[in-house]
Amino acid sequence: MLTNHKLDDDTELTSENLAEYLPQLHSASAIEISDLIMSRPHAEGLLIFNAISEEKAVVVFEYLHFKSQMEILYSLSQPRVAKLLNALSPDDRTTLLEGLSSDLSSQLIQTLSPQEREISTRLLSYPKDSVGRLMTTDYIAVKLDWSIQKVLDYIREKGHDSETVNVIYAIDDKGLLIDDFRIRQLLISPLQIKLEEISDHKFIALKVLESQEDAIRIFRKYDRTALPVVDSKNTLLGIVTFDDIMAVSTEEDTDDIQKIGGVEALRYPYMEISFPALIQKRAGWLVLLFCVQLLTATAMSYFEDEISKAVVLVLFLPLIISSGGNAGSQASSLIVRALALGEISWEDWWRISKRELLSGLVLGSLLGLIGFIRVVAWSMFSNIYGPHWLLVALTISFSVLSVVLLGTLSGALMPLVLRRFKFDPATASAPLVATCVDVTGIVIYFNVAMWFLQGVLL
Amino acid sequence: MLTNHKLDDDTELTSENLAEYLPQLHSASAIEISDLIMSRPHAEGLLIFNAISEEKAVVVFEYLHFKSQMEILYSLSQPRVAKLLNALSPDDRTTLLEGLSSDLSSQLIQTLSPQEREISTRLLSYPKDSVGRLMTTDYIAVKLDWSIQKVLDYIREKGHDSETVNVIYAIDDKGLLIDDFRIRQLLISPLQIKLEEISDHKFIALKVLESQEDAIRIFRKYDRTALPVVDSKNTLLGIVTFDDIMAVSTEEDTDDIQKIGGVEALRYPYMEISFPALIQKRAGWLVLLFCVQLLTATAMSYFEDEISKAVVLVLFLPLIISSGGNAGSQASSLIVRALALGEISWEDWWRISKRELLSGLVLGSLLGLIGFIRVVAWSMFSNIYGPHWLLVALTISFSVLSVVLLGTLSGALMPLVLRRFKFDPATASAPLVATCVDVTGIVIYFNVAMWFLQGVLL
Repeated sequence: MLTNHKLDDDTELTSENLAEYLPQLHSASAIEISDLIMSRPHAEGLLIFNAISEEKAVVVFEYLHFKSQMEILYSLSQPRVAKLLNALSPDDRTTLLEGLSSDLSSQLIQTLSPQEREISTRLLSYPKDSVGRLMTTDYIAVKLDWSIQKVLDYIREKGHDSETVNVIYAIDDKGLLIDDFRIRQLLISPLQIKLEEISDHKFIALKVLESQEDAIRIFRKYDRTALPVVDSKNTLLGIVTFDDIMAVSTEEDTDDIQKIGGVEALRYPYMEISFPALIQKRAGWLVLLFCVQLLTATAMSYFEDEISKAVVLVLFLPLIISSGGNAGSQASSLIVRALALGEISWEDWWRISKRELLSGLVLGSLLGLIGFIRVVAWSMFSNIYGPHWLLVALTISFSVLSVVLLGTLSGALMPLVLRRFKFDPATASAPLVATCVDVTGIVIYFNVAMWFLQGVLL
Repeated sequence: MLTNHKLDDDTELTSENLAEYLPQLHSASAIEISDLIMSRPHAEGLLIFNAISEEKAVVVFEYLHFKSQMEILYSLSQPRVAKLLNALSPDDRTTLLEGLSSDLSSQLIQTLSPQEREISTRLLSYPKDSVGRLMTTDYIAVKLDWSIQKVLDYIREKGHDSETVNVIYAIDDKGLLIDDFRIRQLLISPLQIKLEEISDHKFIALKVLESQEDAIRIFRKYDRTALPVVDSKNTLLGIVTFDDIMAVSTEEDTDDIQKIGGVEALRYPYMEISFPALIQKRAGWLVLLFCVQLLTATAMSYFEDEISKAVVLVLFLPLIISSGGNAGSQASSLIVRALALGEISWEDWWRISKRELLSGLVLGSLLGLIGFIRVVAWSMFSNIYGPHWLLVALTISFSVLSVVLLGTLSGALMPLVLRRFKFDPATASAPLVATCVDVTGIVIYFNVAMWFLQGVLL
């Protein structure tokens, strides 16, 4: 760490005093330097970036956030940009390029060497959010008839350029994947034996067109630091490493949490996103929800008569509709997460419906009972709910039961239906479920009230 | 995979027909067998478990979920249990033991060999949710004055028992950590040189008492497959591998999502948790929220006079209080996630408050404007809102603005305050924020109404 070093203090860095910092920059790790660049104003960050060796600059660049990467690319000379881009790992280059406008992206691809250009064009040709977009082509592939010694010699020669040497892949003459070996297997086996002898001809591979969400599940299950990626014929195309999967997994969870809260996925850290962008990500849903909520005013206006006759009903309105919303939030967040983890799928809709129907009944009865007790108890000591307090109590408790049941079922089914039609289940956010239940809850409540109180209060 | 094999079909497995399946079990991987055991009734799972070699059984057992692990432990003979437990990786054993009652846990610890017992007792002595609980003591530690050749020879001898050989640790004579080496560094360096010559004397380490949440952040940042764990003196105590971190990270995100939805963390897959447990995890919060919501009825009763005088006010009540809830859900989910990712901390509360105050003003004004337009527009074509429609419109829009502002601020500040007092920020769930805003929203709305409509409608 750079603590107690001058680079960590607040002194402005200029081209004049840069020389003083060079020894520190020389001994700092790539991550430390990338942190420094991101914490400093752009001009100072650029000074630092230009002061380090080109080889180190590549690694530092890979650790930078997209925003800082862009700032640096815009400030470098064309030849320097070309050199940097050519040296990037193919997977990091894909992440950078897919964040750009297609114009800028193709402009940058033109600066690549024919070989690197071919790789990047191919990786970018895979669909967004597919495994192909996470892949790197820097891996170690060997043949089954090689001895362990030969494999180790080969690693010594090529290992530096490979994304990982933790797993080695065996391919046949046509490039088809035959087996994968953890480095441990090689290091604890006699040097003279051939790979064939320790091969089980079994491997776990990702399909290049598979979704990144599925890839995350496979990584979680198999505890591998890297997995090979193949096409439909089993040709080895590249590898995906756990660090990229961890990053995507965190990002997907962030997206889900934000969507469940009723915000569009920010895709930037909260403190880094610009204020207009932050408002834009929130306003869309908030306005939509508000417009749906306006229907509550319409629904209420149909019951204006009832309201003026029995004001007591209105007292419990917020309680009843919110209970449905809360029950719905619970169900939708449980189902959204279970879908994301692959614990359930659309095919389970019937089993889930039964479970949630029962949950809704139990939870709704519980809340209905509490509501009943509350009205009865208050009526013992005051006349607040009038002479027909028992009917009021029944109206409340039966409405709560119905609305909680409705909330639970819609909260559980909305994400499933969204998934069924290939939308993101997390779109069934807590606020969306609550809003839909509010509108129908009002209609339910007043209908229940009319049923119980017709001819008495109404 | 076992497709097209008999083990995958629905035939019941009995001790009579078990022999037919043995060749398949022999060739199946540990993960495949663990999947099989978990998908079959307990008795069949146990038959399978007993049919595989003891060595394989250990690996299979480590892949099983807690529930299946328990079922198997209860069915095995005491000596078999002891053998199995002694062979488990220390970190997997900790996970198993910490899930048990303390009685059962100490009973099982007694079956361990003195050496393994010492390890397990020590690991369990670290606080829950600390790095110590994730640690394994199976790692490879070497000395800096060893040649690469000597290190590789050592790996050949000890590598089989180590959790990973992807990273090798250098310690001094006192056991203090001096450096870490990725296996790649060793494999691409000349065999005769000493570790010293490729050492940079720098490493990233986790502190044993550090929280698992912090450990996740460090793993995310440094892209390591394993990190060493040290005490305050830098003594190397163990290592944590990325797969355990990925599991904890997924579990924490699941907890957060469920809490944000207003459910207690399930800690079991949705389909596996028993129905009573599922209800219990939901009922607690739902009842609490319902009881807080009961305050809305109390709040409303204070305004009974106003309600009977101006029924028109009631029409917009659900709209207004829900807008606050929605804005609050957005703010709380953004802040809860940013806290979990370490993007912000309690110290940023002032910057966050300013940002959310401004967000609340902008979003509230936007919704207030839509509400205003809606009332004015409807009034053009009907007399639904009476002669004082302009005052009603002003009441609505000003109330929406205030309630959205309130919702945004409380949604943002509740998680921060919870974190400040060492509670889980995710407890500030969407339903909790919405419920709190409902109660205060009602008070705000009727006060705004009295201010605008006193002497006119009220």
